[in-house]
Amino acid sequence: MKTKLISVGDEILIGQIVNTNAAFLGERLFSVGIPVHKNVVIGDEEDVLLSELSDSEKNYDVTIITGGLGPTHDDITKPVLVKYFNDKLITDNKVLRHVRNIFASKNIVMPPVNAGQALIPENSEVIWNSNGTAPGILIKKNKKVFICLPGVPYEMKPMIDDTVLPFLMKYFADDLKLFYRQKTLLTTGVGESSLNELIGNVYDIIGDGKLAFLPSSSGVRLRINVTGINNEDADNKINSIEYKLKEKIGDYIFGYGEEDLENVVGDILRKKNLTLSVAESCTGGRISSRIVSISGSSGYYKGGVCSYSNDLKISLLGVKKETLERFGAVSSETAVEMAEGVRKLTESDVSISTTGIAGPDGGSADKPVGMVWIGLSDRKNSFAMKFLFGDNREINIQRSSQRALEILRRHLLNIKIEF
Amino acid sequence: MKTKLISVGDEILIGQIVNTNAAFLGERLFSVGIPVHKNVVIGDEEDVLLSELSDSEKNYDVTIITGGLGPTHDDITKPVLVKYFNDKLITDNKVLRHVRNIFASKNIVMPPVNAGQALIPENSEVIWNSNGTAPGILIKKNKKVFICLPGVPYEMKPMIDDTVLPFLMKYFADDLKLFYRQKTLLTTGVGESSLNELIGNVYDIIGDGKLAFLPSSSGVRLRINVTGINNEDADNKINSIEYKLKEKIGDYIFGYGEEDLENVVGDILRKKNLTLSVAESCTGGRISSRIVSISGSSGYYKGGVCSYSNDLKISLLGVKKETLERFGAVSSETAVEMAEGVRKLTESDVSISTTGIAGPDGGSADKPVGMVWIGLSDRKNSFAMKFLFGDNREINIQRSSQRALEILRRHLLNIKIEF
Repeated sequence: MKTKLISVGDEILIGQIVNTNAAFLGERLFSVGIPVHKNVVIGDEEDVLLSELSDSEKNYDVTIITGGLGPTHDDITKPVLVKYFNDKLITDNKVLRHVRNIFASKNIVMPPVNAGQALIPENSEVIWNSNGTAPGILIKKNKKVFICLPGVPYEMKPMIDDTVLPFLMKYFADDLKLFYRQKTLLTTGVGESSLNELIGNVYDIIGDGKLAFLPSSSGVRLRINVTGINNEDADNKINSIEYKLKEKIGDYIFGYGEEDLENVVGDILRKKNLTLSVAESCTGGRISSRIVSISGSSGYYKGGVCSYSNDLKISLLGVKKETLERFGAVSSETAVEMAEGVRKLTESDVSISTTGIAGPDGGSADKPVGMVWIGLSDRKNSFAMKFLFGDNREINIQRSSQRALEILRRHLLNIKIEF
Repeated sequence: MKTKLISVGDEILIGQIVNTNAAFLGERLFSVGIPVHKNVVIGDEEDVLLSELSDSEKNYDVTIITGGLGPTHDDITKPVLVKYFNDKLITDNKVLRHVRNIFASKNIVMPPVNAGQALIPENSEVIWNSNGTAPGILIKKNKKVFICLPGVPYEMKPMIDDTVLPFLMKYFADDLKLFYRQKTLLTTGVGESSLNELIGNVYDIIGDGKLAFLPSSSGVRLRINVTGINNEDADNKINSIEYKLKEKIGDYIFGYGEEDLENVVGDILRKKNLTLSVAESCTGGRISSRIVSISGSSGYYKGGVCSYSNDLKISLLGVKKETLERFGAVSSETAVEMAEGVRKLTESDVSISTTGIAGPDGGSADKPVGMVWIGLSDRKNSFAMKFLFGDNREINIQRSSQRALEILRRHLLNIKIEF
């Protein structure tokens, strides 16, 4: 079974956007045993797409095309499809109602050009797009499959998970003889090479499986891939690898797959029936916004203060003027008083705080750019810890917010807090 | 002149890494008038690379291959090159010394396998790799050019800028008769199809240029591309298109290129010597964290409050209990009182506030999920505006924060606030 991706769009070729769609599709298709063999990125040009379709029909079982489905003059995918398959465009009334409803829900009159989005090739099926106006299109020809999806990631991704993958797994069930499993363990607060050392000999653990280290500023993801001769074999293999990894590095693993630390921490707070508040200086609202990104966070999150100026630290959080004068804003004492202050202000059970020098300017010899104090306070204790996160402002803020949430996770679960 | 990129590596196809190299190459090549026409991503398979080389020789003037130059068994690029060009590998002594030195500088004995990195095809030239052990390779055949580079970004990128681009610009000087310009206008607060209508007949404006609509949840970017017969001609064309677009949709354009709205708003505040504060409910800190992401924001940003609970709206921001009881937390009155409250609390010149139902739960018939009130207050006036941003929590928060910053931008610049 062979699979090809065609990514359509000048903006990819000239490097204006990075082709993250191809990575998403590659990973998802691989995970169900339909690995991608080739990915072609082409511009908005009719003859190039036509010749790619012809290559696909000859050489590939599955072709997935992303992009070029919008309503404007530079969107070529649908016209080229009907030309190649000698088909014609007809209006799909269900899609038309959906497009109208999207505009109506925003109190906007639908521009005439958008009616064109409900046009689909007569000999095709609609792949429903819940998050946008451009429907996906599925064409079958002699057991070959052509799938067109919008290029907007938040529209395309659910269409893949909800419709395309289930369809492909059913349609090609006879060809999918090996059973694939993939699981990603999420770690934070530890580097790639330290993890490597803690794990020791990788092959003792993974056998004929694969283990990939995927580092980012949020932590290192460990992706495990196995193939089995049946479902049970594949499950056993992946569970055994996960068990062995957890023996070695369990404290660093905070979650799985696409989970975020704010999700994990939210679940713990909900289960323990505890409320949280946040006082942020250098992270400037990043922690708060991560917590609020989780649906249902209003159940445990009281709120936060972004005390970017010293005045606010004093007036709102009750940090003592003497503390700021004697130890400075970036100090253990200030971090602790900020955490205690916001916890009392919001009457929450637990609180975290950050104060540091995000950079690129503002550092000094004893307090360099990248120095961050993270504080935690609950009804019994308060403490703060110091970190050095380097001189890149964005990475600094990202790492500080991640570490603060990890300190909170470990505190809530009584795991030793050590990095 | 036609150019093709070949990215080699299973890890790209299965989505383990995102192909940022292709975006870098696309942008750099475009900037010197050698746009990429096609990018092919293939796995580590000999026959597939052979057939791509054959396609390149037939159809493309320049082919750039990245990846597969390492020292291990799965690195196929060099063996395939010598096979395709009927060549043989010989040791390049200068490269061999360089590879030895790299290991020596790390106090590591060079593993025997790495000697193979100094092998290059006899009929090729070395492209020097200052940052790694794998040399680049340049092959010329009948005025067609084949360039192989390592896939590691920090090795590949300087090789492009230092060697490959200067070489290509010289080698193809006669073909580079056209002068390229690109400019991206950033809009927000208006949809793709409404922009299309406001602009009217695109071709009246762009002539022989190109205009692409690139929508995202932050707004629609408009990318203009032109070619001219000389620098002046290209400048004139792009300036004329920008001027005509601004006549039609100038109010919606907040910036250029890679700018963010938080950047633009920060510049305005700095110039006008005004200070800002933020009170966030449904956006939960997103606006504050966007403002703080800008280096130097401490000069104009006082801070913010994330009043996620009604209690905090009352105790911290001074929202009246009666207001919440009579109109609800998601109302014009609450948004205005939040904005006024945070402005007074932080003694800032201007403030913005958000209160809404981010979803996916919590909506009702008259206040559906996605309803958001955005408030603004300065020393003279306060007002609030209502929006419907749909039922996806993340998009909702993103759109609310973007719209709040856009309202602030228009207010500060005395542009009519209307969406």
